[in-house]
Amino acid sequence: MNAEIICIGTEILLGDILNSNSQYLALELARLGIPHYYQTVVGDNLNRIHSIIKTALERSSILIFTGGLGPTPDDLTTEAIASYFQTTMVEDREIIEDIKQKFASRGREMTANNYKQALIPQGALVLPNKTGTAPGIMWEKDSKLILTFPGVPSEMKQMWQDTAIPFLKSKGWGKEIIYSEMLRFRGIGESSLAQKVNHLFDLANPTVAPYASHGEVRLRVSTKAQSAEEAKKIIQPIAEEIKIIAGQDYFGSDEDTLALVVGNLLKQRGETLAVAESCTGGGLGAMVTDIEGSSEYFVGGVIAYSNEVKMNLLGVSEDDLAREGAVSAIVAEQMARGVRQRFGTDWGIGITGIAGPGGGTESKPVGLVYIGIASATGEVWSYRDTYGSSRGRYLVRYLSACNALDQLRRKLLG
Amino acid sequence: MNAEIICIGTEILLGDILNSNSQYLALELARLGIPHYYQTVVGDNLNRIHSIIKTALERSSILIFTGGLGPTPDDLTTEAIASYFQTTMVEDREIIEDIKQKFASRGREMTANNYKQALIPQGALVLPNKTGTAPGIMWEKDSKLILTFPGVPSEMKQMWQDTAIPFLKSKGWGKEIIYSEMLRFRGIGESSLAQKVNHLFDLANPTVAPYASHGEVRLRVSTKAQSAEEAKKIIQPIAEEIKIIAGQDYFGSDEDTLALVVGNLLKQRGETLAVAESCTGGGLGAMVTDIEGSSEYFVGGVIAYSNEVKMNLLGVSEDDLAREGAVSAIVAEQMARGVRQRFGTDWGIGITGIAGPGGGTESKPVGLVYIGIASATGEVWSYRDTYGSSRGRYLVRYLSACNALDQLRRKLLG
Repeated sequence: MNAEIICIGTEILLGDILNSNSQYLALELARLGIPHYYQTVVGDNLNRIHSIIKTALERSSILIFTGGLGPTPDDLTTEAIASYFQTTMVEDREIIEDIKQKFASRGREMTANNYKQALIPQGALVLPNKTGTAPGIMWEKDSKLILTFPGVPSEMKQMWQDTAIPFLKSKGWGKEIIYSEMLRFRGIGESSLAQKVNHLFDLANPTVAPYASHGEVRLRVSTKAQSAEEAKKIIQPIAEEIKIIAGQDYFGSDEDTLALVVGNLLKQRGETLAVAESCTGGGLGAMVTDIEGSSEYFVGGVIAYSNEVKMNLLGVSEDDLAREGAVSAIVAEQMARGVRQRFGTDWGIGITGIAGPGGGTESKPVGLVYIGIASATGEVWSYRDTYGSSRGRYLVRYLSACNALDQLRRKLLG
Repeated sequence: MNAEIICIGTEILLGDILNSNSQYLALELARLGIPHYYQTVVGDNLNRIHSIIKTALERSSILIFTGGLGPTPDDLTTEAIASYFQTTMVEDREIIEDIKQKFASRGREMTANNYKQALIPQGALVLPNKTGTAPGIMWEKDSKLILTFPGVPSEMKQMWQDTAIPFLKSKGWGKEIIYSEMLRFRGIGESSLAQKVNHLFDLANPTVAPYASHGEVRLRVSTKAQSAEEAKKIIQPIAEEIKIIAGQDYFGSDEDTLALVVGNLLKQRGETLAVAESCTGGGLGAMVTDIEGSSEYFVGGVIAYSNEVKMNLLGVSEDDLAREGAVSAIVAEQMARGVRQRFGTDWGIGITGIAGPGGGTESKPVGLVYIGIASATGEVWSYRDTYGSSRGRYLVRYLSACNALDQLRRKLLG
């Protein structure tokens, strides 16, 4: 028994979109212990989809399709599956009602095109789509298992979690699971961390593997086990050892983001935060408020893109701006202090930098960023980062916001 | 004649890495006008690679492999290709010299493992790798064309550009290119737009195909031609027809984002913008400042997460807040007007809503968002959107910011 992931969409073949669905599903199949040997991509073409189904049925027993469930004529997945198996399509009343309701809740009317999304092969179960209009199917046919999902990643993921996983578990999968803890680090490079934990890379069970991306290093500690509890027992001693070795450079595991970790620390201490942003333009505030319930500790902020706003709303000194420039330690500190005072919070963060690609000089190159942190005790700290011009505007802004949160995290940890 | 992209690597099947090589090669094939109908991923397993080669040869005439060219025993690509065609492998002296030199320049000695990287099928040409130790091959065999590349994206890309493109052009490719314009729309659903342009979906040249994602609908108008100029001539009349049909719902093409389009309109008019954000928490400001040079028209903003900030910094009326609630048309309008006045800009945007998942009530459910737009003439408008609780916090925030920009865009267009 093995699964094959089949993504349908001419836009993938044209290179318009990155096929991230396959990676998500691959990870999920591994978690359930379902072997998976092949992935295929094919365009919106009936004959070619038929040929792909034929090949996949010869070598795989679980076929997982994504894409091609939309309302337009080029969306062919369900039709292609039904016609390959020479099965009649039947209209599902519940799907029609659901689509009608979704249109109504957005003040629109269901179009004639959408009726085709309610057609499913006779004998198949509906795999409901909470957010979009395209439901999938779960179909046991000729000893094979067929699942379809829309191509929109957020819809596919929710449907996978809510319905496909319970369904696959009911079929006996997921008894032996691959379980892992992804430990996450900031402020240390991949090779430095690797040197510190080198003795763990040769372990057979659990295994330890490093990953790096965008200023963050990760170590994945994995094992196979009958249950999550059993797996945790195998993983925990090694994960603990790594956390002790890494100290404050370890900031969280799995879904823990910096914003979540900082938010939890603020909540524990009953403290509040405000932010003053220049080069990040609101990105730090957006990161902080990405966390549900962040209004408990986040009061607000000032996007101080112009010098006037820095002076008028944050009390940055005109003299210091003229002498040191907007991108300087003293301005970052005054922004942090100013926003903390104006918003009456325990903590204030200031960020000022040159995101590029223009605006750099020899002494202040693109990628130079200053971060200020102000506390209720009246103390203020600043940090200088240089990300280099080659990182690009997006990464300079993203990494600045991350680093600001990381510096606050270290202050909160004491 | 059509190409198939075959990626070899168990790490892709485990979900450890995202298959970005396929997207890169897909775009490059489109540029050269090489049709491409299938992509396949398979693990490091000789039998399964053989079965993939067999299937690919039946349906494709150019096989492009990435991955599996390393020095370790699990790297099987070249060996699998040679054994499939029952062709002897021969040691290439130049490759050995090249690998030796690369090791020497790093102060190391070539390992025994690396000799295997110098083995290529008899009759194949070497596709040299400037940076890494893994060369590829270019092989014309049985009227098929076989190319192999390492899985490391930077090495693959350089080899593609330096050697594969000239080789493919020498075989007659690249004379005809696939060219397209991606038209982008907001404020209209995929099925409604499809109904309006339904008569264009059957065109043979150019072709028109719809895509939808996250509140945006796209129509791709594509053609094959000898040059970009010729392609534009074929595409333009249809693209123009669609733009006229869609009116202001069309906002831009290809890389045009809402933030870029709004920024360009503001620049043309010499006008400025400030934003006041509650539920988006800085996300709108981040979107606006994502555009290089946005300081020309963007002055800054207030992240007004708490009611106190709405009152103290933006002048929102305490009475209205108490009577109508923070998520109301009047508060959105006052936020827009308040931030415009305080920052002295031509335009002000206010956003207030319930991003969820908590905080919703029967009369004000999760996903309810009000947008206010204030202009220098003293006028102020507001818009009510309901995204539904099922969209999730991320999408409610993202779509609110997009819609705010879209409403401003429509005002700027008049």
